[in-house]
Amino acid sequence: MKAKPVLYTPLFTDLYELTMAAVYFEREMFAPATFSFFVRRYPKNWRFFVAVGIEEILSFLEEFRFLEEDLAYLESLGLFKRDFLDYLAKLRFSGEVWALREGEIFFEGEPVLEVTAPIIEAQLIETFVINALNFGTLVATKAARCVLAARGKVVVDFAARRTHGIDASLKVAKASFLAGFLATSNTYAGKFFEIPVTGTMAHSFIESFPKEIDAFRAFAQTFPENTVLLLDTYDTLAAVKKAVLIAKELERQGVRLRGVRLDSGDLLSLSQQVRRILDEAGLSYVKIFVSGGLDEYRISELLAQGAPIDAFGVGTKVGVSADAPYLDAAYKLVAYNGRPVTKLSTGKKTLAGPKQVFRFGKDLFEKDLIGLREEEIEGASPLLQCHMKEGKRLLPPRSLQEIRKDIARGLASLPPWLREVYPAHQFYPVELTPALQRLQVQVEEEIRRKEGLFS
Amino acid sequence: MKAKPVLYTPLFTDLYELTMAAVYFEREMFAPATFSFFVRRYPKNWRFFVAVGIEEILSFLEEFRFLEEDLAYLESLGLFKRDFLDYLAKLRFSGEVWALREGEIFFEGEPVLEVTAPIIEAQLIETFVINALNFGTLVATKAARCVLAARGKVVVDFAARRTHGIDASLKVAKASFLAGFLATSNTYAGKFFEIPVTGTMAHSFIESFPKEIDAFRAFAQTFPENTVLLLDTYDTLAAVKKAVLIAKELERQGVRLRGVRLDSGDLLSLSQQVRRILDEAGLSYVKIFVSGGLDEYRISELLAQGAPIDAFGVGTKVGVSADAPYLDAAYKLVAYNGRPVTKLSTGKKTLAGPKQVFRFGKDLFEKDLIGLREEEIEGASPLLQCHMKEGKRLLPPRSLQEIRKDIARGLASLPPWLREVYPAHQFYPVELTPALQRLQVQVEEEIRRKEGLFS
Repeated sequence: MKAKPVLYTPLFTDLYELTMAAVYFEREMFAPATFSFFVRRYPKNWRFFVAVGIEEILSFLEEFRFLEEDLAYLESLGLFKRDFLDYLAKLRFSGEVWALREGEIFFEGEPVLEVTAPIIEAQLIETFVINALNFGTLVATKAARCVLAARGKVVVDFAARRTHGIDASLKVAKASFLAGFLATSNTYAGKFFEIPVTGTMAHSFIESFPKEIDAFRAFAQTFPENTVLLLDTYDTLAAVKKAVLIAKELERQGVRLRGVRLDSGDLLSLSQQVRRILDEAGLSYVKIFVSGGLDEYRISELLAQGAPIDAFGVGTKVGVSADAPYLDAAYKLVAYNGRPVTKLSTGKKTLAGPKQVFRFGKDLFEKDLIGLREEEIEGASPLLQCHMKEGKRLLPPRSLQEIRKDIARGLASLPPWLREVYPAHQFYPVELTPALQRLQVQVEEEIRRKEGLFS
Repeated sequence: MKAKPVLYTPLFTDLYELTMAAVYFEREMFAPATFSFFVRRYPKNWRFFVAVGIEEILSFLEEFRFLEEDLAYLESLGLFKRDFLDYLAKLRFSGEVWALREGEIFFEGEPVLEVTAPIIEAQLIETFVINALNFGTLVATKAARCVLAARGKVVVDFAARRTHGIDASLKVAKASFLAGFLATSNTYAGKFFEIPVTGTMAHSFIESFPKEIDAFRAFAQTFPENTVLLLDTYDTLAAVKKAVLIAKELERQGVRLRGVRLDSGDLLSLSQQVRRILDEAGLSYVKIFVSGGLDEYRISELLAQGAPIDAFGVGTKVGVSADAPYLDAAYKLVAYNGRPVTKLSTGKKTLAGPKQVFRFGKDLFEKDLIGLREEEIEGASPLLQCHMKEGKRLLPPRSLQEIRKDIARGLASLPPWLREVYPAHQFYPVELTPALQRLQVQVEEEIRRKEGLFS
């Protein structure tokens, strides 16, 4: 198959990043700029975020380079001068990246990743940085909420068919695995990331056989160890009786039927009736798997009502983060040439200067302070690490398994009230250090003075 | 840069498609199956859909082929037998595809694409087909609603930073261009699809200069013909006075300032004040561009209130289709080996058999009928065309420009009440032919009889 879009390209940028860069180039503005990525506000009922996307950004920065064909395209636009295009041809990312560890838990308003580099470099990567961190964090957090709601039951990713394109399907499979899902149905993601793949059977499979029982038996013959029978094609309670027959046939071969799946109808009542029928037939080992429009709210509700469900197949609603399909996230200039900056736009303030996040509490998070990068705060751990210097990674990428463990540990360190699907009104405490507060006031006053504005 | 994910791969499929295929293979079930893609329900306030994704599916099917490395991966799962993997190695798509033309307007419940192929082939492509048509149609329809709301004003795509990955950003740029957007900010999409690119400037650009006016002047010097000044970094009304100065400086060089942009605050009141200040300075040619959380509702509201806006930059809310981030879409088996099939699951019925959509009305759509594929309905045009036979395309792909024109024509043919952002309760009439109704009843009765169920 033809390799379609090359996804890691510096051309994945908004055109204005390039026109602004051309102005900087013409005026020889090569001084270092610091940009800071943060999420302004929690979506409804969210009280934390799981940072995912940092590793991808580091890889992108390491490989940052315009191809000849990219430059030919830019030239064809008739906007850019030859000397600027020649400059782009040689451009590599030479800056410094401070960021959380991939998988770290963070909160509203906190800096997640800060880039310091010549302003052209730091500006050109904006689109990629926001895109990667916004979506990775969105899905990892939504998936983590499902994992918390499932209270130890298995959750798997079924989203491939409804994600926004194929790149998204890969990112969903990865982020949900990191957040604690057991596996994905997405075979491409399985190969790409070496994560477990899983699946049951579709209604079309049942319908392609003369009778439902024939379909069940055929699947069990080919995959005796791996059969999960789908019950709701015609009539769930009629189907579970056929599943009992198949389980008994498998028992005679010394094999156990893995499970049954419910995909529509009243999942609470059906799961209870199916469990009873299976148990009465001595099949208490057969697992009940459910799917169909699930998210953290529905999972939590089903378990609270006592539904005897062993595993949840979660698709669309996590794959597109249906109730919160984007984060209010930004990548903002906070310093240029040693001068801290901010903007004053209504409702969209930015904390000036390079920063650090200090966390109190270890096994249980207690409080965070946002301060200046160079501050030291006794009794707290600084969370932003230097991942990259002069365009080179300082640490090797960690494996998905390691990140997955870190996330599990992070979620366990959240104050319990923040782990709820519907959390209390209380927020995790995040404050600014006095030094950062003073800087912020100074910078805003300085702008008002220079621009002749009155507060 | 390294070519990252090869996106057009048959491995982009749910694992169960492969396990079901293995069962079909073992039982030599190679008879033709027909699957039908349709959207069950409109999202809130939607009353039509714009079909986008068909061309992509046809390309995928033409190139469908497992690579050696894909088969090695499947073998490593320990699920599949050698003879099945050898079969996959040689598998090409050999079927027939009936579908709407790319860009055709369609309605709830109507078949959009029907595939008839040996069941293994038709089944394995399910994930790709749903993914491509779901997202293409979603974004094209959302974007079309924005274009209708903008009543002839310019709309451009600013979504790249918030789409769900990079593949999604390309698909958004393409689908919104097809729906009538003028351009995209996504440079990669511009190169990839040869569509116009556009952009203004960011707040960071303003902040990186000592004073706002310096930033304005620098941009205007480098891009005198292409300057749109961003006004809301510090204070919009103070900034527009600086924009007037810049416009006057440009006039002395014989150049006209293209525009100004508002990105926050009360866009109605600010656009009115900014227009007045520009007009009083004799700058009625300077366009007002707005952005920031726009969608069809906000565009419609601003124009209804008389906001003097010339162009809308639409980002996140269309790029993730924020109020409707997925369609209730399905690709369902409707016939196997000449036998029409359906499922009876609660609330999820499927119309059995290969079908056709018949449309009455030409310059203005009047009514659609869904019937059997072989029916002929006098006075109506059949909308599903045969695009592919024996795995070969019958027609060359059309250019984006042609499809864009078709969509504009289609939108103009919608009954006016369906073009509203908040449409009346009335739906476009879609009925079933008597022949299809009879078939549906027969198939359901036959299933109940075979499975011993009572209705």
